Amino acid sequence: MVWLAEVLTLFPEMFPGPLGMSLAGRSLKDGLWSLGTRDIRNFATDKHGSIDDTPAGGGAGMVMRPDIAVAAIDAAREHMPKDAPTIYLSPRGTPLTQAKAHELSQGPGAILLCGRFEGVDQRALDARSVEEISIGDYVLSGGELAAMVLIDAVVRQLPGVTGNDISLDEESFSNGLLEYPHYTRPRDFEGRKIPEVLLSGDHGKIAEWRREEAEKITRARRPDLWSRYSGNEK
Amino acid sequence: MVWLAEVLTLFPEMFPGPLGMSLAGRSLKDGLWSLGTRDIRNFATDKHGSIDDTPAGGGAGMVMRPDIAVAAIDAAREHMPKDAPTIYLSPRGTPLTQAKAHELSQGPGAILLCGRFEGVDQRALDARSVEEISIGDYVLSGGELAAMVLIDAVVRQLPGVTGNDISLDEESFSNGLLEYPHYTRPRDFEGRKIPEVLLSGDHGKIAEWRREEAEKITRARRPDLWSRYSGNEK
Repeated sequence: MVWLAEVLTLFPEMFPGPLGMSLAGRSLKDGLWSLGTRDIRNFATDKHGSIDDTPAGGGAGMVMRPDIAVAAIDAAREHMPKDAPTIYLSPRGTPLTQAKAHELSQGPGAILLCGRFEGVDQRALDARSVEEISIGDYVLSGGELAAMVLIDAVVRQLPGVTGNDISLDEESFSNGLLEYPHYTRPRDFEGRKIPEVLLSGDHGKIAEWRREEAEKITRARRPDLWSRYSGNEK
Repeated sequence: MVWLAEVLTLFPEMFPGPLGMSLAGRSLKDGLWSLGTRDIRNFATDKHGSIDDTPAGGGAGMVMRPDIAVAAIDAAREHMPKDAPTIYLSPRGTPLTQAKAHELSQGPGAILLCGRFEGVDQRALDARSVEEISIGDYVLSGGELAAMVLIDAVVRQLPGVTGNDISLDEESFSNGLLEYPHYTRPRDFEGRKIPEVLLSGDHGKIAEWRREEAEKITRARRPDLWSRYSGNEK
């Protein structure tokens, strides 16, 4: 099954961009996923190609018109499986998590709506049951980088993309913890040594040390994850 | 003052990519920020150009060697202001926030280390006091998209980049809340109307409605932000 990414954007020339290289690019060429882009400007109905207008109630910036956004969404849906979600990348959305990326990787694909300006008219999102997803608590100049991040997080979880499936199980978030620290050669770097236990060959002790380190760093850096992990949350 | 982004990567050809277009691209061409990339592979010391090795203690994947990572960092630092932080993009890092992006925009720039494989030897991060930042709770195939996200979030906050400074004040996170919904023409879209208050011309009522909507959506979608905002957090 090919995972289908369909991106609605004012900057189709940004794609595939970084997604055309490395892991995502290789699996794109191998046909494990596909990438379509639609230029939202093609859905403009006047000769000036206008797609936005001033915000009702006043304020700075411009808002993408609902008729334009919906025309783009409807056109994309015609060519996508019925159960592919339509996602609007927005800081107002539900935070993207590793679990959500995994869930999306189990589906047929996604239509990804990228905003620019102040945002998209709320009625377009309501009228087409668009899901809002945020990649983090910061504001970007547009949704394109957010769409790329979501696609990358999803496609690396598709079967056959990451060579070694074991490595997916051990990485950050797969067990609710941040990952333990990594070490490799040389044994001594500027007087800093690889922790003895990692050189012991005792797999039980190594696993135990790694879990302790993962717990330690999660507790120190991410009390929110730690409280969820340790079941202390109300 | 030009904000200096210096990216250490195995995929320098990914840059500027999306950062060369739209808002970030325009301000890059205008000289408001600059982008340098260094290919980490150039710091390999053997003829095979090897930069990674197997993880001490066993496990899947490869780890970037500390000597290689540090050589790249040291080379970048020679050409960067002393107070520019070195940041490693990693899901183990402190979460990127709008406040952190703003803080970085007030500084001289940043050295951004992008990992691939399992990660970077911990001793390189310790030896050079590298700050770890995460753009969200998911795993990417490399740090490059994360670096682009960070750069985009920072440069749009540089003076002169976003045309209208007012719009920065009203957007998500600037006041601890998600943003209120936007509407624009037409007044009636598929039977869905623009909320009456936004057409009233009463600026006080409009501001009040927008604040209520921002509070409502924050409470519904992000109890974590809401509890910080409403001061209910212990």
